[in-house]
Amino acid sequence: MAKKTGFVEDPTPLLRAGRSVDLSSIDPNSTPGFNGKKADGQALLAAEAVELSELQERLFAASREGAPDRILLVLQAMDTAGKGGIVRHVVGAVDPQGIEHHAFKAPTDEEKKQDFLWRIEKQLPGPGIIGVFDRSHYEDVLVHRVKGLSPQEEITRRYGAIKDFERDLVAQGTRVIKVMLHISREEQGARLMERLERPDKYWKYNPGDLEDRGLWDQFQEAYQIALRQTDLNDSPWYVVPANKKWYARVAVQRLLLNALKEINPTWPPADFDVEEEKKKLAAS
Amino acid sequence: MAKKTGFVEDPTPLLRAGRSVDLSSIDPNSTPGFNGKKADGQALLAAEAVELSELQERLFAASREGAPDRILLVLQAMDTAGKGGIVRHVVGAVDPQGIEHHAFKAPTDEEKKQDFLWRIEKQLPGPGIIGVFDRSHYEDVLVHRVKGLSPQEEITRRYGAIKDFERDLVAQGTRVIKVMLHISREEQGARLMERLERPDKYWKYNPGDLEDRGLWDQFQEAYQIALRQTDLNDSPWYVVPANKKWYARVAVQRLLLNALKEINPTWPPADFDVEEEKKKLAAS
Repeated sequence: MAKKTGFVEDPTPLLRAGRSVDLSSIDPNSTPGFNGKKADGQALLAAEAVELSELQERLFAASREGAPDRILLVLQAMDTAGKGGIVRHVVGAVDPQGIEHHAFKAPTDEEKKQDFLWRIEKQLPGPGIIGVFDRSHYEDVLVHRVKGLSPQEEITRRYGAIKDFERDLVAQGTRVIKVMLHISREEQGARLMERLERPDKYWKYNPGDLEDRGLWDQFQEAYQIALRQTDLNDSPWYVVPANKKWYARVAVQRLLLNALKEINPTWPPADFDVEEEKKKLAAS
Repeated sequence: MAKKTGFVEDPTPLLRAGRSVDLSSIDPNSTPGFNGKKADGQALLAAEAVELSELQERLFAASREGAPDRILLVLQAMDTAGKGGIVRHVVGAVDPQGIEHHAFKAPTDEEKKQDFLWRIEKQLPGPGIIGVFDRSHYEDVLVHRVKGLSPQEEITRRYGAIKDFERDLVAQGTRVIKVMLHISREEQGARLMERLERPDKYWKYNPGDLEDRGLWDQFQEAYQIALRQTDLNDSPWYVVPANKKWYARVAVQRLLLNALKEINPTWPPADFDVEEEKKKLAAS
């Protein structure tokens, strides 16, 4: 009898970083909880997109009647790890009305004058919305640590500020899902080379990418510290192996699905007299 | 031999409102330019989604190197006409990174203190983006006329202000596509009744919808005047028959496709020495 393909075990706990995560022990080629190959992953992605889309519509509908629930998906990763692919292939399956996507670039001069969370707060999703951050406030403890853009005391302060900030979000009804897409240095090399070999990919390449690549180990260390410092039960970090793009996509989709199932949004009841309205409509 | 299905004639000029549009002469059940049935429309929607998605990615890429081009899709319609379905099924085929969607509700007290275009300007798409307005500044000449929320002189002033505003958008690199989804009063009645018969649709029903329905003829007149007043060659109005949802979707998709083809965005050339970067990467 053929063995079941797809997730044979719920990946959510398997991917959870926890307070003592060791990135070097997580294989970027692995596919935690999943049995099968690329074609199986792609089939599952398509199949579960329908469920994701339905749950999102319920989340949106429930907010119209006052439910506070919303989701914030934070995507962090080294260049080429596949954040864009997650947005296109996972988030893209959902009604655009219910999505707010924001890519955080290097801060502007105006933003630099403010606390690092100032520009983040302006992009938070409202009730019923799935917010997606492509990079986030974590850049302010990652790149800032690696490149010494802020003193160590300030970075230490930020870990605490981030936890307070995210606890507030959770208290307001936000499910926070923080994902580090985890690729290997070798895989990044291959993906950067592909960008240099395809003219339709040149625009994604930046000579500055090689600078960060040269700081690979320092970035891994900064990620490991940040994950350990800011992993909360209510605002967890997940390390998603991402050398196989199809796995990363189906895994993040499952994280979203699980969060939506836990919220379990329900269609709001009518706040009007249905039979009365039917009569009025029939007479109109 | 079977007759070709799909668009046998480009719908863009067929749907164009023009300065003397007569809404009562446009059949909401018609399918201008299209030969075929629902299944043919759905097949075409899926097939052309691929092309739309590719062109959108080029538009986005070109903007990274300074191209000013962007698209603004304005959706206006009576309740239940299918704006949401256009967003989900047409816009939803495109990478969420390249979309900015905004639904304009009744203005807040703060917004009411400003010029009617103030809140609109804040939601305009930047270069490379497809912006989608679910309702828009046109509410300020439509509902304001029908319900007498502004004096007639002010509404007349607004037609001119809108034209100036949209001409500026065009000059800055925006393709403006304005769509009125055109349904019949009977079809609206059926769709409202469906919302009253399905508990998963209650949240979309508002007893106030019947008030606007009672003003159907006045709204049609207000639309006709607004379309005639603000149809510009560079910022055209399209009246899309929408009793058949599948037709409205494939027609709006084609309007977007035609606009993107006219922009003809190209992959930006490398602004670095490709061979040099390959060497550096190989050595990294």
